[in-house]
Amino acid sequence: MIRNPFCDLQPMKAEPARPVSRREFLHLLAATGGAGAVVKASAALGLLPASAEASTLQLAPGNGRSALILGGGLSGLTVAHELAKTGWDCTILEASQRCGGRIFTVRHGTLIDELGNRQVCDFDDAPHLYFNAGAARIPSTHRTLLNYCKELEVELEIFVNENKSCWVQDDAMLGGRPVRNAEYTTHMRGFLAELMAKAMTETDMDEPFTDSEAETLLGMIRSFGNLDEEHVYRGSFRAGHASGGYLDDGVQKDIIALRDLLKTRLGMGLLRASEGETGPILLQARGGMDRIVDGFLRQIGDRVRYRAMVASIDVRDDGVEVACDHDGSRRQFRADYCFNCIPTHLVTGLDHNFPADYVEALGYVRRGAAYKAAFQARERFWEQQDIYGGITWMTNPSRQIWYPIAGIHQRKGVILGAYDYINGMHHTSMTQQQRVEAHLADGEKVHPGYRELVERPVTVAWHRMNHMLGCSARWPRDSGGWSQAEQARYRLLQAPLNGRHYMIGDQISMHSAWMESALLSAHWALNDLDLRLRNSPA
Amino acid sequence: MIRNPFCDLQPMKAEPARPVSRREFLHLLAATGGAGAVVKASAALGLLPASAEASTLQLAPGNGRSALILGGGLSGLTVAHELAKTGWDCTILEASQRCGGRIFTVRHGTLIDELGNRQVCDFDDAPHLYFNAGAARIPSTHRTLLNYCKELEVELEIFVNENKSCWVQDDAMLGGRPVRNAEYTTHMRGFLAELMAKAMTETDMDEPFTDSEAETLLGMIRSFGNLDEEHVYRGSFRAGHASGGYLDDGVQKDIIALRDLLKTRLGMGLLRASEGETGPILLQARGGMDRIVDGFLRQIGDRVRYRAMVASIDVRDDGVEVACDHDGSRRQFRADYCFNCIPTHLVTGLDHNFPADYVEALGYVRRGAAYKAAFQARERFWEQQDIYGGITWMTNPSRQIWYPIAGIHQRKGVILGAYDYINGMHHTSMTQQQRVEAHLADGEKVHPGYRELVERPVTVAWHRMNHMLGCSARWPRDSGGWSQAEQARYRLLQAPLNGRHYMIGDQISMHSAWMESALLSAHWALNDLDLRLRNSPA
Repeated sequence: MIRNPFCDLQPMKAEPARPVSRREFLHLLAATGGAGAVVKASAALGLLPASAEASTLQLAPGNGRSALILGGGLSGLTVAHELAKTGWDCTILEASQRCGGRIFTVRHGTLIDELGNRQVCDFDDAPHLYFNAGAARIPSTHRTLLNYCKELEVELEIFVNENKSCWVQDDAMLGGRPVRNAEYTTHMRGFLAELMAKAMTETDMDEPFTDSEAETLLGMIRSFGNLDEEHVYRGSFRAGHASGGYLDDGVQKDIIALRDLLKTRLGMGLLRASEGETGPILLQARGGMDRIVDGFLRQIGDRVRYRAMVASIDVRDDGVEVACDHDGSRRQFRADYCFNCIPTHLVTGLDHNFPADYVEALGYVRRGAAYKAAFQARERFWEQQDIYGGITWMTNPSRQIWYPIAGIHQRKGVILGAYDYINGMHHTSMTQQQRVEAHLADGEKVHPGYRELVERPVTVAWHRMNHMLGCSARWPRDSGGWSQAEQARYRLLQAPLNGRHYMIGDQISMHSAWMESALLSAHWALNDLDLRLRNSPA
Repeated sequence: MIRNPFCDLQPMKAEPARPVSRREFLHLLAATGGAGAVVKASAALGLLPASAEASTLQLAPGNGRSALILGGGLSGLTVAHELAKTGWDCTILEASQRCGGRIFTVRHGTLIDELGNRQVCDFDDAPHLYFNAGAARIPSTHRTLLNYCKELEVELEIFVNENKSCWVQDDAMLGGRPVRNAEYTTHMRGFLAELMAKAMTETDMDEPFTDSEAETLLGMIRSFGNLDEEHVYRGSFRAGHASGGYLDDGVQKDIIALRDLLKTRLGMGLLRASEGETGPILLQARGGMDRIVDGFLRQIGDRVRYRAMVASIDVRDDGVEVACDHDGSRRQFRADYCFNCIPTHLVTGLDHNFPADYVEALGYVRRGAAYKAAFQARERFWEQQDIYGGITWMTNPSRQIWYPIAGIHQRKGVILGAYDYINGMHHTSMTQQQRVEAHLADGEKVHPGYRELVERPVTVAWHRMNHMLGCSARWPRDSGGWSQAEQARYRLLQAPLNGRHYMIGDQISMHSAWMESALLSAHWALNDLDLRLRNSPA
């Protein structure tokens, strides 16, 4: 459950009444922490944190109130669904021909409305031949989203992210020869374990271990790297068998020299691949991530007006007025409240009556330029290489190849042939032909014959996708995190303008690019409004 | 493709004609290896290794030849299926009421035929409420098995093994309080990385790094443990958020002191959980692992005689004669060849005319005593804790809890409540009531209220399962691996007795307890026979 400073509708958990001082907090951490526990998140002290529970809502009846929802992205759909449940009159104005925003599954016949590069996907028409061009992964910790999947009966299946059978390829390493992820990581772990064992035996450590502790730790290090009893790494079957292993003795693969492993910077990512946000189990909607959008639309589909381009927003004391262009004519909409998930940098281009600081904050948010491409594969060649799902990592601009879980052992499959969320403009600025040629050449380095194995490319450059013109919001401009000024802008946009207009979406969160954030943003706005309505004189 | 010394039916891959000497082989490894590459598998030199390709068969037509297959385990089913394809006359004699052996899925109505502890499973009757009491995981590297799944149209889905959202519990650590796997492993990686960084900066290393190499390595270590710029571990969001992270700044969970982490020996396994045989992507048959057995039976089901207990085996020059008890009467079967997957230690108890060394070898093989138990859960309480599949690790005798992937977001689910493959006799020697009570008490330490959350227990003690009386074959008696004498026994049992009687199954492999080994054993026997038949005068 989300608690926000303005809302105490939910039963609060019992908490100590005496406030813990900042000093006590730090002291507590230092005492419970081992080597050097200091809270990193001191900037967050003073903010009321979200709990780890899923966010839920218990909204009061709508009593005929009305809401306009600008944009049919996930947060907009959520607001419409929740308000409709409690009897509100809701309308979603969606500029494009579909809802879902960056939840976008491409399959047979899908229009990819990139400005200057419209494509219609010509994959074969089969349930497993789809490509999640936007949101693709649901961490099992994203409970609010998972609760909606349950409520809306969206069937889920496991998504494979890290896969040690996939490849690692860098022109700078081993003359560009791809190696299995398991080879790279096993050998590197072996060498690192040697290093650790050396530190255990040769270095004076700050921490005074008992003999038993030292023995446990050394055992752990040996096990981590598969060291021999002399604490030397001499290769490991974890890297795979060169031959044998079933009916005959197994023969180990050759070790790759540490010096060679250090030739690529990919190792840094490989050694932390199952940590952090992609560390928990990941799930996906069976059949395509837009099954989540379909789930919402089964509830509120009749409330969506498609191809309805918002032209102006007028926030008044008693409501919000929105002008909208639809089929060549302009129409006025009016509602008591407005929830707006249009990308901030597009909102600034509308006619509006927003105050200057609000406009400044809207304009401050930058956008990512993530880029993805996919191919239909004529055969599932990866399965012949033991690969069932997962990611091949490359240093070339295509960066990643994703192998599908959908359609295991079918004849064909759809693979992601490029995913660049770091330098996406590199491909965005190319023609379609140049993009495809680049991915074919890059893929060929990992899969000889790739050029012949794949067909029917589609590319999605989010920076040029119609009605979005950018991927996720990018807030902090400094790698050190959110400045005070940035936090102030964020809080300004989160709060309702004139009590009537809420900006929503993952763009109004401190953790953009995840569906969970879009949902939590929508819930925050709904809870905030609900509290105000409950507390206001009827 | 398997190549064996007696069979060259398959087109051979081009290979250098000049044999590589043992000395050159070792030298080659040392040259390509980094820190100290020495082949571990020297015992295997001289053996013709299996290639990494899947094993396939191209058997000659049967021409009316006949085969008796003793036991309907996976290897027996495979032999029957392959011989039937090429026109052999095959009969499977299966002692129990079902095929599959240690591929055993328990669901509503399943008889668990443990001697002295017969159970009939009373889980609710629903497709997702099943328990794989035997084989449960298919590594993506097990290509022969995966090829059969494809051929037999067995639908596969991802099996979740390691899951960092699951729990780690040890009475000796933190007063028995369970911690998330992610907490344990993140903190331990942090401390280990500190240790490595110390070694980098304080220890003279054998390997002379360039500045750039040292920088890459140090970057990798920092990234591995999420160290700060001073190379100190100060906690990490990889361990999960204490609060916040979406709409507010995230607050880290407290560090667990290294000294506390070292209180449990579970850490050793946790740090290598995704390495080795369970490192590749794992799959399972959708709906239960016995879907694989069903796949074979769709092809050859009419060739199986159930409740047919083999009483004697008479190996002759011109064939094999088997006596079999069925419905109270004894019947003689005769065939040209015999494939026998009855557990070796049960074969010795039959009437037979085997030579003494063969009997000695059969009797040499020991058996594991793996033990599993499962419950139906009244609700999927683990999903409320972000757990979708995976394993909770405990030091108590129940050792593991597995959460199902089948039936995500349904109301109920079946969880494994104990899995002991190390000291399985501990539970095997208990009554059913004692076993269940032990698992409830153990589970309660991780999931308060467990006792009320789970119901309808089933237990499977493989040591006492009728017609098997033991789990997988255990060959080497020394942890150092196979002795020469053990290898000789293995080769003796692998070879056909009198050219007529083949022992098969994962028991006749150097890597028991995996379905892949059973299949490869069957293929080896089939290829060996096929070659002999092709080369023999008509």
